[in-house]
Amino acid sequence: MSALRHPARPPIGRDTRLCMSLSARPSNFGSRFHNSLYDQLGLDYVYKSFSTKDLPGAIGGIRALGIRGCAISMPFKEAVIPLLDGLEGSARAIDSVNTIVNDDGRLTGYNTDYSAVRALLAQAGIGRDTRFILRGSGGMAKAVAAALRDEGVERGLIVARNADAGPALAATYGYDWAADLPDIADTPPLLINVTPIGMAGGDEDALPFPEAMVAAADIAFDVVAFPVETRFLALAQGLGKRRITGAEVAVLQALEQFVLYTGVTPDAGQVRIAAEAARAA
Amino acid sequence: MSALRHPARPPIGRDTRLCMSLSARPSNFGSRFHNSLYDQLGLDYVYKSFSTKDLPGAIGGIRALGIRGCAISMPFKEAVIPLLDGLEGSARAIDSVNTIVNDDGRLTGYNTDYSAVRALLAQAGIGRDTRFILRGSGGMAKAVAAALRDEGVERGLIVARNADAGPALAATYGYDWAADLPDIADTPPLLINVTPIGMAGGDEDALPFPEAMVAAADIAFDVVAFPVETRFLALAQGLGKRRITGAEVAVLQALEQFVLYTGVTPDAGQVRIAAEAARAA
Repeated sequence: MSALRHPARPPIGRDTRLCMSLSARPSNFGSRFHNSLYDQLGLDYVYKSFSTKDLPGAIGGIRALGIRGCAISMPFKEAVIPLLDGLEGSARAIDSVNTIVNDDGRLTGYNTDYSAVRALLAQAGIGRDTRFILRGSGGMAKAVAAALRDEGVERGLIVARNADAGPALAATYGYDWAADLPDIADTPPLLINVTPIGMAGGDEDALPFPEAMVAAADIAFDVVAFPVETRFLALAQGLGKRRITGAEVAVLQALEQFVLYTGVTPDAGQVRIAAEAARAA
Repeated sequence: MSALRHPARPPIGRDTRLCMSLSARPSNFGSRFHNSLYDQLGLDYVYKSFSTKDLPGAIGGIRALGIRGCAISMPFKEAVIPLLDGLEGSARAIDSVNTIVNDDGRLTGYNTDYSAVRALLAQAGIGRDTRFILRGSGGMAKAVAAALRDEGVERGLIVARNADAGPALAATYGYDWAADLPDIADTPPLLINVTPIGMAGGDEDALPFPEAMVAAADIAFDVVAFPVETRFLALAQGLGKRRITGAEVAVLQALEQFVLYTGVTPDAGQVRIAAEAARAA
């Protein structure tokens, strides 16, 4: 047990470092994930989510109070950029920041969604010749499309009803665009859902791709993380397909934040415990 | 046991309220005191101390992040006033703020040092006819002198080497000033130390008043809180004198902050446990 290997997490005091998140509608995922790892590793950190109506004031507070790191969610991922001192490659790749690291008052933006998706694509053997359909055109769709391009994937189709955002996203990353899904006969190896279809509390029973299309593909990638087993992912599992799950993206991007903030890399068992704590939130 | 009467403190998440302190040299007293009470009472709060080199940025962050309350220590007690939306009576009494309460973005300054000292003076039966000598001329001396005046004490002597601050303090509150202590024959009933004499890590073995003067007085009031038993207080105890201790001031002012932030009044046993946790820090 980690309790035998690590000292207890110290009581919160003057040396404790605060990490945080900023979003219009905070979840408890980050608080549970990071605080679980601080507990397991005995690190003198504490993590708490915040909302704000004053982004410059909040970022000024991060500087003035020496807050070590901050996750950035909707709707602040682009608006925060001019308030920072620099962008690391992952944030520059998509002009979007989901993570701020504060080094003695110098604030650097990262995008761990992008880097986590890249790592998961590479791990799944996705490369140059892997054609795909990606449904969606929002901020996370941009992170996934950029990751596909930067992993060298040459051909793919962005499917999005939005006739502004859809074609713009496709043009930015060199892919095709269509308002609707193609025929089953044109199913590529990789199907990616970056819409809220299948998300808990919304359209939970819906499928982003028809069953026959999932059957014709090789890999199902769902960015939806709640529930962990979406209908799309469950269907792909039943059909014996390879999968990349939204839960994997959520955990890997949070883990990258954790390593950036603390400099400590937890082991796989510790990450699993933290991920379970976060999902229970 | 409080564990039987109260729910466990919830894990830190989006609904957790942050309270904090700002000072050039933070101690752990506030973190330990407030977090102990949150634990005992099962309140969804967390407390952490901060330092800053950018007071306006820090106060802007308190507003933007919805931080519920903030203790203010040296050297920010006067400088913070123009950054607030209003002062409550305790802060107006001495133009000095040691506590900010944030009500949905409206920041009000309080001074719980002043109000705690007033409460302890009243409790010790100190009033109109209680003559005193007060040694010191800093920010806390101002809080004590104002509390004495507002409790109706008519005559007293401020003893301070500083020939600017000493006479100014005495004049502001209508008392006399001297650079040095008077003869033993002129010892008043109340002796008050508001200098660092007797403080741990400094002049710990020194006495702010000569032994014969302590013997001639009725009440010894020491603002020094570390150690809890200063030599001055121990001497007074040995001579059978009444005492007001720095530890009582520290705990009572922190308790007033706690009630302002949470709206909850802990019982005496809970406060005692929190005070012990804070002193162990």
